Amino acid sequence: MFQQLGLIGCGLIGGSFALALRQAGLVRRVVGYSKSPSTTERARQLGVIDAEAPSALQAVAGADLVLLAVPVAATESTLRAIRLGLGEDALVMDVGSTKADVVAAGHRALQQQAANFVPAHPIAGKEVAGVEHADGALFVDRHVILTPTERSRAAHVQRAIEVWSRIGARVQTMTAPAHDAALAAVSHLPHLLAFAFMQALNGQDEGARFLELAGPGFRDFSRIAAGDPTIWRDILLANREQVLHQSQAFREALQRFEAQIADGDAAGLADAIGAASRARAALKPALSG
Amino acid sequence: MFQQLGLIGCGLIGGSFALALRQAGLVRRVVGYSKSPSTTERARQLGVIDAEAPSALQAVAGADLVLLAVPVAATESTLRAIRLGLGEDALVMDVGSTKADVVAAGHRALQQQAANFVPAHPIAGKEVAGVEHADGALFVDRHVILTPTERSRAAHVQRAIEVWSRIGARVQTMTAPAHDAALAAVSHLPHLLAFAFMQALNGQDEGARFLELAGPGFRDFSRIAAGDPTIWRDILLANREQVLHQSQAFREALQRFEAQIADGDAAGLADAIGAASRARAALKPALSG
Repeated sequence: MFQQLGLIGCGLIGGSFALALRQAGLVRRVVGYSKSPSTTERARQLGVIDAEAPSALQAVAGADLVLLAVPVAATESTLRAIRLGLGEDALVMDVGSTKADVVAAGHRALQQQAANFVPAHPIAGKEVAGVEHADGALFVDRHVILTPTERSRAAHVQRAIEVWSRIGARVQTMTAPAHDAALAAVSHLPHLLAFAFMQALNGQDEGARFLELAGPGFRDFSRIAAGDPTIWRDILLANREQVLHQSQAFREALQRFEAQIADGDAAGLADAIGAASRARAALKPALSG
Repeated sequence: MFQQLGLIGCGLIGGSFALALRQAGLVRRVVGYSKSPSTTERARQLGVIDAEAPSALQAVAGADLVLLAVPVAATESTLRAIRLGLGEDALVMDVGSTKADVVAAGHRALQQQAANFVPAHPIAGKEVAGVEHADGALFVDRHVILTPTERSRAAHVQRAIEVWSRIGARVQTMTAPAHDAALAAVSHLPHLLAFAFMQALNGQDEGARFLELAGPGFRDFSRIAAGDPTIWRDILLANREQVLHQSQAFREALQRFEAQIADGDAAGLADAIGAASRARAALKPALSG
């Protein structure tokens, strides 16, 4: 399907994409570049890429598929760096967790080559980072959201849908604002709440003693609080409007619960917990995939 | 170690305790009672109990160990129901998730027999309820908190420590208020936040569409929102003071994050996320047990 993948960012996500394409027989050759030369070398040693490029620009030379798997904050400068090396028919995608900012960065950085760009967000990951953990099955049964812009060429959008589908992902297309609103609700807000929860504990003299009694419920609820600070700082700032909107809706719901608890409103409290519990229980089959 | 266990409430927790005692050779005979006769019958058919009692009072006749595994709200009435049947040397424990209310209920209901009562909270469970899921290994490596009162006889406290230790639990003793403060922070608050999170989503027109994009982070964070509404209503009300205290501390932490996001304070935000992330990551070894 593709002759050459230019992979910029040979970490967990980029490496997993390269492995998935290889395993599905969708690419002949992978040329990789990472900011850290030792990462690129390691990716080659592990067979994730075939050749190391000394720059992002050189990684895209001759590529008919380019994947940017870099921190969102580096998207615009990376697109600028590769623009003049892009082949006319190369499909370019990113993997960032926010999309309105990426669309804007693409327009600014790529100019007429913005037609080649199909912003993408694979909702997949692991608790561990690094190319050592790259996994060709990482995207199987995971959602991948594409947010083509009005400049994205239709043929590129179609090829983007095909490549993610063929490595097992469930592909959807939507606008960048729709993506950012949804992700704020189901991903960015839970992370923010988990961070605030840990900080509220950290701020208490007895916090460490309390934590000794943490059980399995705590473990699962707070797991995402261990996320990477740089990545999450960038996501929360890039999607700040939607994140703050969701956080406010959450605080209002929390304060309704607090009022019921303070008033001893047993019936109202049971109703509200019941509604929350049913909504969560209804998701179980969909979430086990 | 014990001749006869009187088990009141033959569900997941009570049934698991009976099985664990049997498997460790710590009890000769188990007599069980549940509010629903079909539950008691099922427990006998599954070999969790040896005999069915027609009432709580009859379940404790001849027992040198009594476990109440009933909803917290039923603790006081159950203790009243069994008081006159308790043997002089019988050790009585409950398994409730809140302890100050249980201590008070014990004093009111048991009167002079309060010396026999050692309130207990095994921090263990499953996502599924019912005696069918009872598991003799449920308490292995789990925390069990004992909150003896000033009336609890020292010999009973010692036997309580021994029996939970011998079925694999990590036993600690503390005061009921210390227990309730800690559990509010590491268990009751996370549940409240998960309930409020699901309700905030439920309240949005686009909530169902957003939920289609939920990934593994969402799944783990919100898992505890599927908790039983009656049990959690009772816990949140029984421990309302500590729960509201923790919820307020949480809201303050959340609002500090919101201010950093709104102000675009990248450095402050990265610091706060970093502190939360390090605190959570430091718990990983302790929580995997």
